Amino acid sequence: MILWGYWRSTAAWRVRIALNLKGLAADHRFRHLRQGEQRSAEALALNPQGLVPALVLGDGAVLTQSLAICEYLDEIRPDPPLLPRDPLARARIRAFAQAIAAEIHAVQNLRVLNRIKGLGQPQDVANAWAHDTIAEGLPACEALLHDQPGPFCFGSGPTLADIALVPQLYNARRFGVALDGMPRLLAAEAACQALPAFAAAAPDRQPDAE
Amino acid sequence: MILWGYWRSTAAWRVRIALNLKGLAADHRFRHLRQGEQRSAEALALNPQGLVPALVLGDGAVLTQSLAICEYLDEIRPDPPLLPRDPLARARIRAFAQAIAAEIHAVQNLRVLNRIKGLGQPQDVANAWAHDTIAEGLPACEALLHDQPGPFCFGSGPTLADIALVPQLYNARRFGVALDGMPRLLAAEAACQALPAFAAAAPDRQPDAE
Repeated sequence: MILWGYWRSTAAWRVRIALNLKGLAADHRFRHLRQGEQRSAEALALNPQGLVPALVLGDGAVLTQSLAICEYLDEIRPDPPLLPRDPLARARIRAFAQAIAAEIHAVQNLRVLNRIKGLGQPQDVANAWAHDTIAEGLPACEALLHDQPGPFCFGSGPTLADIALVPQLYNARRFGVALDGMPRLLAAEAACQALPAFAAAAPDRQPDAE
Repeated sequence: MILWGYWRSTAAWRVRIALNLKGLAADHRFRHLRQGEQRSAEALALNPQGLVPALVLGDGAVLTQSLAICEYLDEIRPDPPLLPRDPLARARIRAFAQAIAAEIHAVQNLRVLNRIKGLGQPQDVANAWAHDTIAEGLPACEALLHDQPGPFCFGSGPTLADIALVPQLYNARRFGVALDGMPRLLAAEAACQALPAFAAAAPDRQPDAE
């Protein structure tokens, strides 16, 4: 498998965690997002969305969208599971992951911040947009865990929810979001960071880190 | 089950289609999004994200995030399937649905357009933002179907991909996006609209339509 990513891409980071948790090796290659490499003709031929990650399987099939890729990895390599078997529990974990991926991250990623600057707004307005999107979204995620004991988001082991959470908290700090009202999210992050699969996936551990 | 929705919510519409395809009945209740009812104390107690849809199960459990709800319905009522059994095919369908839900819809929904107006931008700039987000995102979705015969997005029956597509094409027209370069998307939409499950879920067929 070849994973096309970028060291600081939240979405590629999710897939790195999932690969590590599953013990699956991939050849890691990189698109420099700030230099627009994800929109080169070669990149668009692989992923017409002009995004990372893209996972190229042995037979050449290309998978996109990080949560879909994580579920694919969970289905071909069920152990350890990223989702439990109970449909209600699966739905709550998927909802948590989507609340981050769609409602927070997709609204504050580089592409959206560039579009805000395209409206004639300065960088600090774009940064405030990212801050506000994260600061409004994360408390809802904290609330979604109100009946969950931890230490991970949903129980005693990492799931798709934790895979979405950890990179988003990194973004939160990057944009100066105060996290002191979110003890459950921070506890889940701490539980994750004790695992080598999460530690090895961190941006500053990647070969293309700057 | 109780489905909290809004007639013109793209996300609630997805769940209505899934319920109809599965032959599952729900008590439909409404949050008037333009009047902010989704952010009332009662609504936030049910869904801290301040969004629709929320699906309340018989035992009081609350499910959020439309794609997670659709997969839940698919798991408790497998027939007709919203996803095939093959992991690769499932991943491609999920990726298509997420490409719409996260990369397009989440970036052009009412909440985001209100935030753009909060930057001091007029309504026509917010509308252009929605137009551009959809006009950039849908061609990638068309490309994701390049090897799929149809008539639906992925084969001979509707899947999670079609559930995501049909409401997004409605939004595309609402914001004046030209669709003439997307024959596969339009063919899939036509196949869906011939099905009562899709027709009955349309916004103008809902009790709270204005």
